[in-house]
Amino acid sequence: MNRSAQYVGDGTFVVEATEPVPPGPGEVRLDVAYTGICGTDLHIAHGAMDHRVRVPAVIGHEMSGRIAEIGAGVTGHRVGDPVTVMPLDWCGECPACRAGHTHICHRLNFIGIDSPGAMQRSWTVPARILVPLPEQMSLAHGALVEPTAVAVHDVRRSRLTAGEHAVVIGAGPVGLLIGVVAQATGATVTVLELDPGRRALAADLGLSTVDPADVDVAGYVQDHTGGAGADVVFEVSGSAGGVRTATDLLAVRGRLVIVAIHPKPREVDLHRVFWRELEMIGVRVYQHDDYAEAVRLVHEGQVPADRLISRIVPLAEVAQAFEALAAGGDVKVLIDCGGDA
Amino acid sequence: MNRSAQYVGDGTFVVEATEPVPPGPGEVRLDVAYTGICGTDLHIAHGAMDHRVRVPAVIGHEMSGRIAEIGAGVTGHRVGDPVTVMPLDWCGECPACRAGHTHICHRLNFIGIDSPGAMQRSWTVPARILVPLPEQMSLAHGALVEPTAVAVHDVRRSRLTAGEHAVVIGAGPVGLLIGVVAQATGATVTVLELDPGRRALAADLGLSTVDPADVDVAGYVQDHTGGAGADVVFEVSGSAGGVRTATDLLAVRGRLVIVAIHPKPREVDLHRVFWRELEMIGVRVYQHDDYAEAVRLVHEGQVPADRLISRIVPLAEVAQAFEALAAGGDVKVLIDCGGDA
Ligand SMILES: [Zn+2]
Ligand SMILES: [Zn+2]
Ligand SMILES: [Zn+2]
Ligand SMILES: [Zn+2]
Repeated sequence: MNRSAQYVGDGTFVVEATEPVPPGPGEVRLDVAYTGICGTDLHIAHGAMDHRVRVPAVIGHEMSGRIAEIGAGVTGHRVGDPVTVMPLDWCGECPACRAGHTHICHRLNFIGIDSPGAMQRSWTVPARILVPLPEQMSLAHGALVEPTAVAVHDVRRSRLTAGEHAVVIGAGPVGLLIGVVAQATGATVTVLELDPGRRALAADLGLSTVDPADVDVAGYVQDHTGGAGADVVFEVSGSAGGVRTATDLLAVRGRLVIVAIHPKPREVDLHRVFWRELEMIGVRVYQHDDYAEAVRLVHEGQVPADRLISRIVPLAEVAQAFEALAAGGDVKVLIDCGGDA
Repeated sequence: MNRSAQYVGDGTFVVEATEPVPPGPGEVRLDVAYTGICGTDLHIAHGAMDHRVRVPAVIGHEMSGRIAEIGAGVTGHRVGDPVTVMPLDWCGECPACRAGHTHICHRLNFIGIDSPGAMQRSWTVPARILVPLPEQMSLAHGALVEPTAVAVHDVRRSRLTAGEHAVVIGAGPVGLLIGVVAQATGATVTVLELDPGRRALAADLGLSTVDPADVDVAGYVQDHTGGAGADVVFEVSGSAGGVRTATDLLAVRGRLVIVAIHPKPREVDLHRVFWRELEMIGVRVYQHDDYAEAVRLVHEGQVPADRLISRIVPLAEVAQAFEALAAGGDVKVLIDCGGDA
């Protein structure tokens, strides 16, 4: 028997017994252990994506579990193997796919948003999206690989190197992971965050934090970089002020990484982009190389999974899990889907 | 005797006899053959930079000439050698210089704007800014090396390669040179320009042109790129609409090069920057490698110097030269400083 949390619209979930889906050719059925809740899931739960999500919908894409059943023609996997998924399904034929940028496919199916996801006990997926996890990694930690891969992708695209100075604007879950991954490269990292609770979480993770309402941030970064400015700024706040601060802080040839979603156009100081030969770099999801690195960082503890997972709730209480995350104070909330037996 | 065109403020030039400056240690005195007028010179002549330029000022930085006299300690140069200059003087000590980005020195002296320039018969400069020209290159062509180096720098920073599709927004002198240099890399180039006269100049240089008031540019670029969009867009218009068009046209992972000066912040579609993983790249002046490539392109005729030089006027008529350029219809106007004897 399967049990799934179904989003039925209007910000409401129903948890009920459903039939497991037998794996077809090229598919596997997974016993889901843990599924994390990400910002997009929260948006969906708040009804903000009812135009895109077809209800009833099982959502969720940050997961870990074990292979329970293998469909015809699937090779290289065994029942019981611990896995996570890279929840992207691309067409292979559009100009982006043909150019090798499959993660930005013009017709991308984001599994767990555009098609059924992992907030259920039993989940059937194409075998090609599986990412093996080390047998020694706890499955709770395994659920952090997907969000870590986001951060790895963002840091990789920034070309940040050891000894450089990075600034992260906004210390939500994505900003914190970027800070941790950036620090793991050997860079010096400063996190800017207005909210004292989030600053405390960042400090807990060993990140330097600054309250931009309290400190002259430009002066601070100048002082800490010998007058040069920041090599990389990650804009994770989604605010107009964040974009303005980012260009102000950057050194000559500095890189501004646009991580947050800015629903409307923002004013950008293009004179400074020209004057300092700045770069702006858009980033979206991840690629296979990012997953390999994310598995390594979680496995080796460079991403402190236990400190990031602030709450694990059973599937039956999925609504409370979303409420807790929305209330703030948690970094990662995992749903225990029952497959870590 | 020297003769120099002196900008005395209020958009006024005076041409008069002055004393030649004997070259000090590490300096050379040049007999200037030709000096081109660039957009910045035009700004100065219109009084728009009276806050920066200390009058009386000899301006001009797009030049060619021969070495007339050599100061103490200068090696590797002989009297009579044909040369142009890379008119940048940097401090060597600021964070940008220490990081190797000397062309964006925090205290850059742009020779010909911040210190005396080449609109004179006899010009004394530090030997370190000299760039040798091939003996067979006409000195009139040599005066195009500096603006060509700007275009080479912009195209190099864009990472444009053969077979890619580039769009140039704005067909002023800089946009035309970028179009020519981009085409020389083997890329397909489309130039967007509202003004019919400038479109005609672009077409004359063998560039494809589109009138954005007449054609659905996004549809046009889609049709010509198999639905992908442009790989590179050079924003040379300096307009808000140019920036908007640029992000609209770019393919997944496309690069937007900010060439024009945008005096105030512009709205940028950061959602599309994220969604398509676009890059924005600021560009400013040039570096030594760009000069080497610019000399080659002018020398081999890939930059069609004769078609770009629309007028050569004697130094005594400098005011008319500026008027002609301001009136439009010319790409490059050179001032004959008398040193091509
Ligand atoms: Zn997510
Ligand atoms: Zn595709
Ligand atoms: Zn110039
Ligand atoms: Zn310097």
